[in-house]
Amino acid sequence: MSVLAAKGFRAAGVVAGIKSTGKRDVTVVVNDGPSAAAAAVFTSNRCQANPVIWSIEAIADGTASAITLNSGGANCYTGQFGYETTERTAQRTAELLDLQPSDVLVCSTGLIGAGDEIFRAKSLAGVEAAVNELGSDETSAHNAAEGILTTDSHEKLSQRQGAGGYVIGGMAKGAGMLAPGLATMLVVITTDADLEHAALDRALRAATAVTFDRVDSDGCMSTNDTVALMASGASGITPDEAEFTSQLIEVCAELAKQLQQDAEGASHDITITTVGAASVEDAVAVSRAVSRSNLFKAAIFGNDPNWGRVLAAAGTTDAIFEPQELDVTINGVMVCKAGTPYEPVDRVDLIPRETTVLIDLHAGECEGTILTNDLTHDYVHENSAYSS
Amino acid sequence: MSVLAAKGFRAAGVVAGIKSTGKRDVTVVVNDGPSAAAAAVFTSNRCQANPVIWSIEAIADGTASAITLNSGGANCYTGQFGYETTERTAQRTAELLDLQPSDVLVCSTGLIGAGDEIFRAKSLAGVEAAVNELGSDETSAHNAAEGILTTDSHEKLSQRQGAGGYVIGGMAKGAGMLAPGLATMLVVITTDADLEHAALDRALRAATAVTFDRVDSDGCMSTNDTVALMASGASGITPDEAEFTSQLIEVCAELAKQLQQDAEGASHDITITTVGAASVEDAVAVSRAVSRSNLFKAAIFGNDPNWGRVLAAAGTTDAIFEPQELDVTINGVMVCKAGTPYEPVDRVDLIPRETTVLIDLHAGECEGTILTNDLTHDYVHENSAYSS
Repeated sequence: MSVLAAKGFRAAGVVAGIKSTGKRDVTVVVNDGPSAAAAAVFTSNRCQANPVIWSIEAIADGTASAITLNSGGANCYTGQFGYETTERTAQRTAELLDLQPSDVLVCSTGLIGAGDEIFRAKSLAGVEAAVNELGSDETSAHNAAEGILTTDSHEKLSQRQGAGGYVIGGMAKGAGMLAPGLATMLVVITTDADLEHAALDRALRAATAVTFDRVDSDGCMSTNDTVALMASGASGITPDEAEFTSQLIEVCAELAKQLQQDAEGASHDITITTVGAASVEDAVAVSRAVSRSNLFKAAIFGNDPNWGRVLAAAGTTDAIFEPQELDVTINGVMVCKAGTPYEPVDRVDLIPRETTVLIDLHAGECEGTILTNDLTHDYVHENSAYSS
Repeated sequence: MSVLAAKGFRAAGVVAGIKSTGKRDVTVVVNDGPSAAAAAVFTSNRCQANPVIWSIEAIADGTASAITLNSGGANCYTGQFGYETTERTAQRTAELLDLQPSDVLVCSTGLIGAGDEIFRAKSLAGVEAAVNELGSDETSAHNAAEGILTTDSHEKLSQRQGAGGYVIGGMAKGAGMLAPGLATMLVVITTDADLEHAALDRALRAATAVTFDRVDSDGCMSTNDTVALMASGASGITPDEAEFTSQLIEVCAELAKQLQQDAEGASHDITITTVGAASVEDAVAVSRAVSRSNLFKAAIFGNDPNWGRVLAAAGTTDAIFEPQELDVTINGVMVCKAGTPYEPVDRVDLIPRETTVLIDLHAGECEGTILTNDLTHDYVHENSAYSS
């Protein structure tokens, strides 16, 4: 039930004609309270889309009662006209729901530079249609999740029930351009827990740091990434913050995994875990360096357990380790031990989509994982034909 | 005439059977003096191949009288056995030439983890054959240049004549795995200028910093990169250091360009120049970030002047700029001005292999260029099949 799993929310997704495919492309999610507490994190890309610029301002007071998302144009680098399109989208949503514009977050996703008069007109008409269709049933949840997709092959949903019965539910879109600092990835999470902004904000930052920030499908950071968390308080439960955070991490991790599994053109989902690190930062740095090696990613596509490319990538980091002490295990086979060939590489079975790479630095007790994908012909094809 | 353009050198390249293709795979270049001054720079990858570990020690005294290069195995992560193979290669070369082993630099290139007994036996036999064939004619220069190639489609050569008549000549190999900190790339440059180690070292570091270090074909840094410069002094000329450095920069730039042009599977050579930067570091950082965007590189492959991907990559850097002030010009067409669409993208002709991207940060007077390539089906194919 995605964003409608928690009590106190309504949603809709409609066809506004922004997408040439005729699929749903405008989604509105409304928090009916009693609380309007919210938190959000955004792309750390300095080139931010207009909806991100707007939403950073709108969330500054720690509340949000609605979020409007359109798919089919990023509304990024579209100048003052584009910013006004976002502003009007929030204004129209607010008018129709009897809110202030600053209570409305806005998200967009699609091609950078796209956001002309037609995009504006369709977006605004879409807001009206979506508000008219707002519901709290399963169909509404489904339509809302569909309305944020672009090249995604399917909806991405997750939910958990916390102690005492409060609920967290979420939906996500994203299928490439996935990298740290939030990977175009739009995520809306709702909860009926009763928590104030500060607690929501801490929980959301803790959760995204170990989930979405550790998806690195292709090293490319989007201008539009947004993860918004809205809490209605409708369950009447104020959970323990640590317990809430751990439930939220599970929801975010499940959505992050779905983003990885739906990455454009990928044929392997690669989980790269570095252990024996002196710090979590070192472990993440090594895993991320490997996840960004095109040579390694092309080898995995070719079912080639090329551990030399793992070590060559590790060697570009500042992490603490002795180059001659590294072990590399691919899908359970230790192909390199203490910096020399160990088990025969032909024992590694790379036919399954799910692939694991384990790097032991022998330098400490910490570990860190990055989720990535292989580099395939389909990736090149889909990303060379994207805007045409 | 590559490494034999300058007076005082002999060279040879022979078929030692390391490569399965039957092509030349062991090269020896000898400096007959009167001077043996030399300098070298190596990969900044912390995971260094055995020949790099050896050569760093061997060059420490500022001299080198010979360099032995074999292609067909990287001799990296091959343990103590692999290091001893390198050591014996230097010893054998030294014996045959009446030198000390520490006068001999060694380079290898090929698959990481490759370097077994057979590799050792063939390498040592190859040294003997090469020393027997040492010559100073054009055929010898050609054979030497051929003996260092792997997936390269052709030899890479350059030469310049400096003030007073001294000569600098060089040869290079490299066709992918090209990234900063020296990009597998082996380069041997010879000169008959009479300069001491300290001057050669300053000149070489100055030259590589603005040439080889600014090739970033695929973001992947090798474990074996080596650029060696040997000066025989045979011209009797001691050039002005600045003049020598500027000639050396031209030789290195010409070889770097040839590396870019021969990058595995590439269909576009992309020159990314960032101008209007507050510092050279900022300009290089922005150009490099764009050069590492798989989305941008796939777009260029698809003849799509996707400037949004240029800006999205720029936004991941710490360079000083205002996101809304950026201009992007692709092949002479300003497609984005002050952060908004400007000239129509269909005016950009991306059919030619040579592609230029110009980014103006409007933040200062500095500029910096990175040479890169597009991301193609052939790149994925060649790098997924490399070790098989």
